[in-house]
Amino acid sequence: MTPEERAVLDANEAFYAAFTARDAAAMEDLWTRRGPVACVHPGWAPIHERALIMRSWRAIFRGPKPPAVSVEAPRAAVLGDVAYVVCIERLTDDYGDEAGALVATNLFVREAGAWRIAHHQAGPLASDAEDDDEPSGPDGPDRTLN
Amino acid sequence: MTPEERAVLDANEAFYAAFTARDAAAMEDLWTRRGPVACVHPGWAPIHERALIMRSWRAIFRGPKPPAVSVEAPRAAVLGDVAYVVCIERLTDDYGDEAGALVATNLFVREAGAWRIAHHQAGPLASDAEDDDEPSGPDGPDRTLN
Repeated sequence: MTPEERAVLDANEAFYAAFTARDAAAMEDLWTRRGPVACVHPGWAPIHERALIMRSWRAIFRGPKPPAVSVEAPRAAVLGDVAYVVCIERLTDDYGDEAGALVATNLFVREAGAWRIAHHQAGPLASDAEDDDEPSGPDGPDRTLN
Repeated sequence: MTPEERAVLDANEAFYAAFTARDAAAMEDLWTRRGPVACVHPGWAPIHERALIMRSWRAIFRGPKPPAVSVEAPRAAVLGDVAYVVCIERLTDDYGDEAGALVATNLFVREAGAWRIAHHQAGPLASDAEDDDEPSGPDGPDRTLN
């Protein structure tokens, strides 16, 4: 792993730390203030304005306590001053039981040496998606979709 | 819209044209051969190797005919030689009936003037996610997740 990839993964960890701590100020600071931003919470329509994205995080932080999130298998790709991480968000409820998993894409831009989030999308991982060597997808109509 | 954004949206359209036509050769050509790639089909675990991503598309193209996909509300963001599109994939079955919707992030890299796909993630859009001015998310545990 390169130092750049390490720095991107650190920024990715900071994102999940802010989420877990429900720290709206930290979340605000982690997102870029330059250029376009986008956020796709699981099931939600995309949000494209920074103020609305921050409002969505504050609403989430004010809501019922979400499961704990631990990041698994993060993979960073650095493309110059843009980078992205694809990772699994493993969810655990208050009783320590597995509460499902999501797959996330987190896109970062480099600003004065710091990696800031420009885009986040998370969506559900099917419960059987990790059991096979070859991904099989869930049953149902999503199975054959891009 | 800038000419660069237009070119990125054209590349995004080419991606969905290849999908709709089940054209494995076109899909192969659309994905970058340089640098990292990743693909997250709905519900699937992430795929990080180009050969496995292409195998997944061929498997999808060999499978039962998927619903028709039309792209709605694509938004392109150009960040130098990297760009991404966030869009809605609206699904229609053989009877012309709505068959749900997905949200996709498609990441492109510029190679010798052409935009090639480096990463794709698609996940379900909740059926009620577009009814409100403010995204409300689906019912259930995903509602408060990042």
